[in-house]
Amino acid sequence: MARVVVDVMLKPEILDPQGQAVQRALPRLGFQGISDVRQGKRFELEVDGPVDDAALARIHEMAETFLANTVIEDFVVKVEDEKAEEEK
Amino acid sequence: MARVVVDVMLKPEILDPQGQAVQRALPRLGFQGISDVRQGKRFELEVDGPVDDAALARIHEMAETFLANTVIEDFVVKVEDEKAEEEK
Repeated sequence: MARVVVDVMLKPEILDPQGQAVQRALPRLGFQGISDVRQGKRFELEVDGPVDDAALARIHEMAETFLANTVIEDFVVKVEDEKAEEEK
Repeated sequence: MARVVVDVMLKPEILDPQGQAVQRALPRLGFQGISDVRQGKRFELEVDGPVDDAALARIHEMAETFLANTVIEDFVVKVEDEKAEEEK
């Protein structure tokens, strides 16, 4: 079983009121030096079987037709490597 | 200017109705072989100045106090490398 991540973000030219709200709140809360915030969605999919090119193509199609609204959103499909990141 | 990403996901033991709704909809839409879906939030922060240990520590604190609800959510702070990913 493998994990595939689909990140969905508003396109850069689309206004992001959620991100703006976060960005404006930061100085009030004592956090300086963040010039922009964009907020999007992250989907973690547990895939049965191998994540080969065919599986990735299917997930790409799924993201395009279902997880993202490609009129206003971009998406990125990533195969998650085993916890290489800093984790809290 | 550098980009730092904060991924916020519900803890594994917390029920995720959004993710479940997506997972249940997939077979109906013709996508088989996805055994679980979790949906979370992705914040992209544009940081003024260098992303050194001090900046990362501040962002970690910001994520902990403000972007994530650590009672029910886990978060991961990542410095984004320059578009190494498949992008649509």
